[in-house]
Amino acid sequence: MSDYELVIAGGTVVTGDGQFRGDIGIDAGMIAAVGTGLRGVATIDASGLLVMPGGVDTHCHVEQLRSDGTTDEESFVTASTSAFVGGTTTAITFSAQFKGRPIGPSLADYRARAAHAMMDYSFHQIITDPTDEVIRDEIPALVAEGIRSLKVFLTYDPLHVDDRGFLRILAAARRHGALVTVHCENYAAIGWMTEALLAAGLTAPKYHAWSRPVMVEREATYRAIALAELVDQPIQIFHVSCSEVAEEIARAQARGVKVWAETCPQYLTLTESDMDRPGFEGAKFMCSPAPRGADAAEGLWAQIRRGTIDVVSSDHSGYGFEGTRGKRIAGAEASFRDIPNGVPGVGARMMLMFSEGVATGRITASEFVRVTATNPARLFGLTGKGRLEPGADADVVLWDAGRRSIITNAAMQHAIDYTPYEGRAVTGMPVMTLRRGVVVMRDGVVTAEPGTGRFIPRGPYDLIEPSGRVANGFEAASFA
Amino acid sequence: MSDYELVIAGGTVVTGDGQFRGDIGIDAGMIAAVGTGLRGVATIDASGLLVMPGGVDTHCHVEQLRSDGTTDEESFVTASTSAFVGGTTTAITFSAQFKGRPIGPSLADYRARAAHAMMDYSFHQIITDPTDEVIRDEIPALVAEGIRSLKVFLTYDPLHVDDRGFLRILAAARRHGALVTVHCENYAAIGWMTEALLAAGLTAPKYHAWSRPVMVEREATYRAIALAELVDQPIQIFHVSCSEVAEEIARAQARGVKVWAETCPQYLTLTESDMDRPGFEGAKFMCSPAPRGADAAEGLWAQIRRGTIDVVSSDHSGYGFEGTRGKRIAGAEASFRDIPNGVPGVGARMMLMFSEGVATGRITASEFVRVTATNPARLFGLTGKGRLEPGADADVVLWDAGRRSIITNAAMQHAIDYTPYEGRAVTGMPVMTLRRGVVVMRDGVVTAEPGTGRFIPRGPYDLIEPSGRVANGFEAASFA
Amino acid sequence: MSDYELVIAGGTVVTGDGQFRGDIGIDAGMIAAVGTGLRGVATIDASGLLVMPGGVDTHCHVEQLRSDGTTDEESFVTASTSAFVGGTTTAITFSAQFKGRPIGPSLADYRARAAHAMMDYSFHQIITDPTDEVIRDEIPALVAEGIRSLKVFLTYDPLHVDDRGFLRILAAARRHGALVTVHCENYAAIGWMTEALLAAGLTAPKYHAWSRPVMVEREATYRAIALAELVDQPIQIFHVSCSEVAEEIARAQARGVKVWAETCPQYLTLTESDMDRPGFEGAKFMCSPAPRGADAAEGLWAQIRRGTIDVVSSDHSGYGFEGTRGKRIAGAEASFRDIPNGVPGVGARMMLMFSEGVATGRITASEFVRVTATNPARLFGLTGKGRLEPGADADVVLWDAGRRSIITNAAMQHAIDYTPYEGRAVTGMPVMTLRRGVVVMRDGVVTAEPGTGRFIPRGPYDLIEPSGRVANGFEAASFA
Amino acid sequence: MSDYELVIAGGTVVTGDGQFRGDIGIDAGMIAAVGTGLRGVATIDASGLLVMPGGVDTHCHVEQLRSDGTTDEESFVTASTSAFVGGTTTAITFSAQFKGRPIGPSLADYRARAAHAMMDYSFHQIITDPTDEVIRDEIPALVAEGIRSLKVFLTYDPLHVDDRGFLRILAAARRHGALVTVHCENYAAIGWMTEALLAAGLTAPKYHAWSRPVMVEREATYRAIALAELVDQPIQIFHVSCSEVAEEIARAQARGVKVWAETCPQYLTLTESDMDRPGFEGAKFMCSPAPRGADAAEGLWAQIRRGTIDVVSSDHSGYGFEGTRGKRIAGAEASFRDIPNGVPGVGARMMLMFSEGVATGRITASEFVRVTATNPARLFGLTGKGRLEPGADADVVLWDAGRRSIITNAAMQHAIDYTPYEGRAVTGMPVMTLRRGVVVMRDGVVTAEPGTGRFIPRGPYDLIEPSGRVANGFEAASFA
Repeated sequence: MSDYELVIAGGTVVTGDGQFRGDIGIDAGMIAAVGTGLRGVATIDASGLLVMPGGVDTHCHVEQLRSDGTTDEESFVTASTSAFVGGTTTAITFSAQFKGRPIGPSLADYRARAAHAMMDYSFHQIITDPTDEVIRDEIPALVAEGIRSLKVFLTYDPLHVDDRGFLRILAAARRHGALVTVHCENYAAIGWMTEALLAAGLTAPKYHAWSRPVMVEREATYRAIALAELVDQPIQIFHVSCSEVAEEIARAQARGVKVWAETCPQYLTLTESDMDRPGFEGAKFMCSPAPRGADAAEGLWAQIRRGTIDVVSSDHSGYGFEGTRGKRIAGAEASFRDIPNGVPGVGARMMLMFSEGVATGRITASEFVRVTATNPARLFGLTGKGRLEPGADADVVLWDAGRRSIITNAAMQHAIDYTPYEGRAVTGMPVMTLRRGVVVMRDGVVTAEPGTGRFIPRGPYDLIEPSGRVANGFEAASFA
Repeated sequence: MSDYELVIAGGTVVTGDGQFRGDIGIDAGMIAAVGTGLRGVATIDASGLLVMPGGVDTHCHVEQLRSDGTTDEESFVTASTSAFVGGTTTAITFSAQFKGRPIGPSLADYRARAAHAMMDYSFHQIITDPTDEVIRDEIPALVAEGIRSLKVFLTYDPLHVDDRGFLRILAAARRHGALVTVHCENYAAIGWMTEALLAAGLTAPKYHAWSRPVMVEREATYRAIALAELVDQPIQIFHVSCSEVAEEIARAQARGVKVWAETCPQYLTLTESDMDRPGFEGAKFMCSPAPRGADAAEGLWAQIRRGTIDVVSSDHSGYGFEGTRGKRIAGAEASFRDIPNGVPGVGARMMLMFSEGVATGRITASEFVRVTATNPARLFGLTGKGRLEPGADADVVLWDAGRRSIITNAAMQHAIDYTPYEGRAVTGMPVMTLRRGVVVMRDGVVTAEPGTGRFIPRGPYDLIEPSGRVANGFEAASFA
Repeated sequence: MSDYELVIAGGTVVTGDGQFRGDIGIDAGMIAAVGTGLRGVATIDASGLLVMPGGVDTHCHVEQLRSDGTTDEESFVTASTSAFVGGTTTAITFSAQFKGRPIGPSLADYRARAAHAMMDYSFHQIITDPTDEVIRDEIPALVAEGIRSLKVFLTYDPLHVDDRGFLRILAAARRHGALVTVHCENYAAIGWMTEALLAAGLTAPKYHAWSRPVMVEREATYRAIALAELVDQPIQIFHVSCSEVAEEIARAQARGVKVWAETCPQYLTLTESDMDRPGFEGAKFMCSPAPRGADAAEGLWAQIRRGTIDVVSSDHSGYGFEGTRGKRIAGAEASFRDIPNGVPGVGARMMLMFSEGVATGRITASEFVRVTATNPARLFGLTGKGRLEPGADADVVLWDAGRRSIITNAAMQHAIDYTPYEGRAVTGMPVMTLRRGVVVMRDGVVTAEPGTGRFIPRGPYDLIEPSGRVANGFEAASFA
Repeated sequence: MSDYELVIAGGTVVTGDGQFRGDIGIDAGMIAAVGTGLRGVATIDASGLLVMPGGVDTHCHVEQLRSDGTTDEESFVTASTSAFVGGTTTAITFSAQFKGRPIGPSLADYRARAAHAMMDYSFHQIITDPTDEVIRDEIPALVAEGIRSLKVFLTYDPLHVDDRGFLRILAAARRHGALVTVHCENYAAIGWMTEALLAAGLTAPKYHAWSRPVMVEREATYRAIALAELVDQPIQIFHVSCSEVAEEIARAQARGVKVWAETCPQYLTLTESDMDRPGFEGAKFMCSPAPRGADAAEGLWAQIRRGTIDVVSSDHSGYGFEGTRGKRIAGAEASFRDIPNGVPGVGARMMLMFSEGVATGRITASEFVRVTATNPARLFGLTGKGRLEPGADADVVLWDAGRRSIITNAAMQHAIDYTPYEGRAVTGMPVMTLRRGVVVMRDGVVTAEPGTGRFIPRGPYDLIEPSGRVANGFEAASFA
């Protein structure tokens, strides 16, 4: 038997199912064997390190197109760099649709931008305007291209889709075999609360949280589940912020509804009080849903352990703090309503999860692998990603579980000029990242060339066997 | 001590709290005493009968204005007659608002029509268009007149109010001390399902149920509760159709949300299969929410016993079967979408509830009094109604608990040309009804003169002590 | 019409169902009329006062026989005095059974002692030894005498009954139509924890709470419900100490199990930290279950409002603090295991409930009447008690809702030498108590003669219609 | 790189985490590599087959000692044969303790018998008499030998342990790091029901189910969880029979209690009506808990999918039908009380689960692997078992997923003279079984030599981090 091109030797291999001492043999960018005593033409010594699947971050806003033709500040190159630094090798980013316009051209534009990526990637297609053409022609075309997930915002101007539009998207997804991901907050309630707050002169960043309390998220989550249940279409609830919301999801799961849930490090590490820092500083921590009270994190960890929430993504957003295209787009005196929502996190995600989760004993290393890599890859049909098994892409991260460090923005190496986690001490960090068998990061130095990332066409999710019939026995296929 | 003007002697008095042998002494239309051995100038012998508060039906569509200037077929005179026959002495009917028009003139018109009533009455004010004028001026004016409940439809064209409108109404109700009642079904889902059904040629009455399955009602109920909880405003959920919906209400009640619930006899006695009768016959049983499966009734009874649902009203609707202003308004070939929703029931309500509830042992006679009279009167501030105690109006029904009869439309004495309960055998019926001390019905013969009913201005509900603050501590009073 | 012997005029009459201005006419010790403008030979002016049913305390340990032939320190005379001072007119006390001995003789002895009472009374029969004779002969004899409730302790030496004994008692109760009340704590767990605590030298009163945490009560409650459900026999869970336990009861109620629940003022006003007072002082607050954490009270109030718990009794216990037959029976250095459990409260119960419940707005005056008088009387078949309606016994308390006072042991006028509520400020207090139409207390002065109280034989509870069959269709009647 | 001793080539490898095309390389009885293109000195062609971990059956009664010195009819040799035929390679069987006797000698005897096994094995130690010696000396000795699980029966004479004994065992397990498994049914209720049934002449096998309805199991499960929660000791609930019981477990899991659950094929495939077959035939299906109604299976499958139940064992029992040491031990006319409980299933378990689970689409192949191999091995610390990863024992089953067959007793190759699954058609069956790299079964022919099985000393479960403190902060270590 000939030697493998590359062997990662002597580490503790962690999979979603357990951990063991072993080697990874790599040929042609793929895992050829997982074993002991493997011999390689080249060898990487992983002794003392955890050997884990490269992270899969299924919720990243990268170089996202804006309706004025510009984009968010984070490019595919900088995002890839930060991802590699943080141990992530694959991301799903967002192709935008603009109201009144078809998807095709903006997707083509976005594909061209993504071609510069070093990480592997796929897209969620945001649907903001489910016109007949979108429903009839463009959604099947997306699926044919391997873009098998549609993103719906139940709030935000001008992205917001109403219940009827949501139903049309759910039905189309069902016909063509796409998954639907949902941002769940009640649009009308937020608008109404916001106006009242502004009218009362309550404009500081902290009022962002006041404008969208938990029940606003809980309601929209319940509604999204009910409508998906009506159509019998699988959905993933994005960025669950607290246990009360997760509890509604758990209830639906218990009765067999096809609903999955994601949370993000910001809901496990930040709180609403972070938005109450002096001056404009609070804007750095603004995202939606808003971070909750100090007790919320433990409840979320419990829901992760319980399996209600099985994916942790970054919801990385490309808004800088000082420039004019980010948090200050409406000026440094802008009210909370006019400050862009979102925080950067593609680089910090895995370190935060390892440190707060594994190092504290809240979850095991296998659970860490599952929520950061295996589960997102499986749920979104990212074949060959998120697992260390023969035939899979050799996306691997070598992790020093005991290394202590301080998160700084410089270390994140993204384009954004701040991180909300600045100064936070973490235990455990990636020391080497391989993407399809190639070392792309070593000790914080990224060596990949732009354009070496690949678009991953996704296959159908294999999670469900659609019954063909909705409640009352009416053929779902008839719905448009 | 002088004798009472009238004594109802020797019956078994049933109150919401228990039952005992006793007499009712009446002076000036009011109950002067409840006792034993009372002496009256006149005496009614109630021996062998139950003596109960006259029914209070807080959900009746009577002579309701339509936007074309006509009204529903049931007039205040015929509705009063049917109510008296059925043992009901007070009703709350609906004052309409038409989009683009103020409330005032239509309310004035409606008041004039109601002046012919023989039963006592109040109004719910339907809000379909919560304009600034309605919110700022008309709602406080309504409350000042003693019209202290607002009705919101979350579905139905053109009555439907969206979430923002609903929030504005909730906040206005809170500022002025009105209760909000809600028809809970998801507007978009029903519209979308309906179009698909019609497109598939599925137009018969039975598809009405297909177009609005349980989860459509369950979702809207959850949403109504969440938005009311946000504003800290008490609401009543109208016509809960099944236990799944009631369960969401029970969960909210358990955590202290100010939500009450109503159901109707149609959900306890009819099923969706009634709409599947041959030809147009199914239209007789169409109402919204739709009657559910054969198992639903027992679940609802359990929720009544448990106290989740504490009011049973008729949702009496004024649509005839044969004429051109009722079920056939769009022709005898109309699809389910174009058939008016609603069934008559003001006359049958109490007999159905007694027969199916008390005679079968599902509820006690006191529970019957509570859900048909005491609770609705209390919840809606109908002072002096729904109870047999000194100072209360002498609205009394004498009930023969063992009498068996068959419901027929003729016996109902309403204007509508059918009853969905035709031919149903019942045990227990009213043999005499008194309204403010005057016998208005005896053995099915109504003797009251039109115009003898009174408008009952309602006081504030005393069920809650508004805290003045919504979630996050923001003053609700600031919201508009 | 002749005048009534006595009229209580001009007060605000509060019933379990509402409140109104009115008079109470009394003849021959019974309520003859409730009305307005009643005229009496004698008149009591109740203007400015609440007029309510005399309290019914269905859980009082009074002059209870001990196996050595002595009794608890509280006599029927002193207990009656304290009850009248506190607005209570009827109590159910406990007839003991001693293991190895029949019920009859000790019941006869107890009846003789009770004959000195001034309050009206009935007994629960404690069953500690469900021998064949007890099951076959004595339980039906008890029921025939109108003693229709059996008390079972699932913990306490030597009172403890095991699961099989409990099942035998449940089945006997079902055959003969008695209610079963249950003290729910896990016997084995308490014993085991207690031994470990004592072995560790942890003997102070506060360790009483450590020896019996919430889950010990929650488990036994669940078990009692399951076994009662198996036999289809109604039970009341005594002295629920916290919301976690009540939640298990609520779950059972929601699925239709015939289970009712009681709590006591000590669980609404005391906490486990009271037992941590210096020296032996903590013993004053020891009862079982133990008072819980500071948060527990609000949860219990919520369960009262929700209706899960519908009776509030005192669990009055006759153990003094200084003497040798009470808390110090095993000496002043006794470990918590050897200090008798229980606190006095028959006098304080209604003031505590009014002050903490009604004056704070947690419950309404009608809810107060229900939980302190109407519900306990109904549940235990105390005909003529707990309600102000014609034919009922004229047991009435006149209450000054605004009067503020301080609870002292002297004011309680019981035989016990302390009250755990010493120094507590309360709002609202009884100013006059009538028992069967006779004034027995006025401004704290009790005027009743010993022996004027009556034993109240109880009728069957009318709450259930036994189905005759347990799970699997097996005739329960076959069980012994 | 030298070739592997043996390669299983070209199959679809199924792990608890997914499936992929790949080879298994085996050296020295262990898995050396999982890869593609592996080369072996010997090769097994697995093309078209599933390659899965050998089954791990953690609940088997094999050659179990009886107090009279005899044993159950199934020997380690016959059980191993049947296990291999069915694809199972490891089992945990039961070492008995007899009341009044120490564990040591019977364990030594049992070890000697087990030495004949061909399958690998470990023991649960049944504790029936938790004497001071057992608690103080024998339990730590067991753990030191790698027997790290204790079995407690909450019912059955004479095995039954009462709550205090159970608490002592839980505390000892906690101190020494053993897991506790529990048979949960209420002892007293079963005894009481049984006596009543027998007294009524209801003696046929079907009354076995009547004597122990669901609530008897549900109660004991709740109690076992509560007591384990008190001590903070992990437990596994054995043989959950229905969803109602699983729901109580799910509630506890949701609040973080360390409780796991097992079910068995009999609860997924048999029903209580099987016990109602003519004559003594029903005895073949008697086990405890009893199989439930026809609806129960779907509820259990849902709880498996939800993760509440994560292990499926056989609860294989060694009672034959015709002989005098099995079902007829008390004669062919014995009442249900005297018929031994239990059904054979070590051979049928995996085929039943695959056919009813995977072939029907109720679970995936990975879920099958998890519940039949990976989870039981992990929970019970069976290092090297239940997973296909480098370093693990090469226990492998090759499975023909599409092969259809009929279960017969002859095919089971156990010592028992019947199978309750006789005549049942199944889809999918094992065609080859390897134990530590040696082919021990091929096409139903077992080739292993007696005595080649190994005792597997178990390490500590790594599922929990004991907090050292129970409720109230009292050190658990103090408890005995």
